Amino acid sequence: MIIKPKIDNTKLTKRIYGYDEELKRKIIDVIEEKPLTLYLNSQEIVTMMTINDYPEYLAIGYLLNQNMISRRIKIEAIDYEPDINVVVVRTKNKTNFEAKLKKKTITSGCAQGTLFGDVMENFDKVKLNKKISLKKSWILDLSKKINTTPSLYLKAGAIHGCVLCKKDKPLIYMEDVGRHNAIDKIAGYMFFNKVVPDDKTFYTTGRLTSEMVIKSVNMKIPIVISRSGFTAAGVELARKANLTLIGRAKGKRFMILSGEKRIK
Amino acid sequence: MIIKPKIDNTKLTKRIYGYDEELKRKIIDVIEEKPLTLYLNSQEIVTMMTINDYPEYLAIGYLLNQNMISRRIKIEAIDYEPDINVVVVRTKNKTNFEAKLKKKTITSGCAQGTLFGDVMENFDKVKLNKKISLKKSWILDLSKKINTTPSLYLKAGAIHGCVLCKKDKPLIYMEDVGRHNAIDKIAGYMFFNKVVPDDKTFYTTGRLTSEMVIKSVNMKIPIVISRSGFTAAGVELARKANLTLIGRAKGKRFMILSGEKRIK
Repeated sequence: MIIKPKIDNTKLTKRIYGYDEELKRKIIDVIEEKPLTLYLNSQEIVTMMTINDYPEYLAIGYLLNQNMISRRIKIEAIDYEPDINVVVVRTKNKTNFEAKLKKKTITSGCAQGTLFGDVMENFDKVKLNKKISLKKSWILDLSKKINTTPSLYLKAGAIHGCVLCKKDKPLIYMEDVGRHNAIDKIAGYMFFNKVVPDDKTFYTTGRLTSEMVIKSVNMKIPIVISRSGFTAAGVELARKANLTLIGRAKGKRFMILSGEKRIK
Repeated sequence: MIIKPKIDNTKLTKRIYGYDEELKRKIIDVIEEKPLTLYLNSQEIVTMMTINDYPEYLAIGYLLNQNMISRRIKIEAIDYEPDINVVVVRTKNKTNFEAKLKKKTITSGCAQGTLFGDVMENFDKVKLNKKISLKKSWILDLSKKINTTPSLYLKAGAIHGCVLCKKDKPLIYMEDVGRHNAIDKIAGYMFFNKVVPDDKTFYTTGRLTSEMVIKSVNMKIPIVISRSGFTAAGVELARKANLTLIGRAKGKRFMILSGEKRIK
């Protein structure tokens, strides 16, 4: 595994007291979450709650997955300012997104919701790798390997995990308070390290909603596995994109919702 | 129970096929999620993914919980347009929020993230009811009653539940794809039906993050129970507001993180 959960990083968890059902005082570990405000050049974009282990990956991954910057963009610098919880992504030229946002703000103020259309336009163009296949046994192996890896989830709970895998090997294991942050950090890692997506599998502990499917497809990852459930819209979009979507992967059980031809 | 999950509403779930781990074709029920775009007067606010059972409650609850409108506001109309997935909240006078947003958009474009400061200002002013108490047995009773009530979760999974309770009685049981939508729908219901918050308990299936604690406090509900975990920031805010916060309520076990004086 290239990136593992940092269970020994004392900035990510905090030791607090609580009372159990017998009203006995207990000491437990809990996850720290912090606000992080993202700027694209001089444009404030969003404030996210995050465990803040990889602010740079999260920043770039968020902008990529919201289609606010393109995968071909030239990044000049990413400045993370820990004292004020701010991360600034600087690009050489003004991005297309800023022009759109400026136009939009004149008419309606907040453009974030309305960028959804753009994301879908990109979605329709993506062709996922048809040649890659996944052995049934790999699904069980991946689940087992991921769930037994020491993690912040096992230490403190209340956190989602996302793992980029190849065949039956977990490679990049990211955790965060929001399942979207975890996938965005993986997208940021892949961008910086020029990771090829089309022979990869994406594992998540979170539910397979439409947004998770859209992100996976826009990242060009052909196979997605989750130990949680799925929504009708998530399944529909996965079928449209020919994404292999596997949900409820627990113990020896799982359910294939889409792209079953890739399963061997 | 005044509002129960609508398990027989065929618009909320969809019957689809999938393949199990033996590659046998199975028919299953899954949750439908739909985009809903919210306007405050002529101002576009956000597009949410929701099961869309109560668009009016969701719209008002969202605006209240984001501190975009005040609890004293006069609502002139709420127009829900199902054909274009739009809900418009019309107020008699322009709201304070619109003035702020206008000022903000001139300088930075998207103001949603930066309204966080306003929400916290309100948080610091709230005084939660100190006189209300909760019997230990009610925590177990509430969990049992809620978890055995027929729900979309039991039917189709991939959905969160939030329940407004009084003593050991669940009253308003809302479900949605996002845990935030479920609590916002309860806030909307409480606003329209003038429900007094300070003798109520709020039960959620979702995690107790800072945002959930902030919402509960701003809704003036003194007790919150979750079957999931909690974050350090959530616990810290709950202690600051003297909110009774109970997490990991499963079977006969639970953990009290804050406001333990209300437990009898």
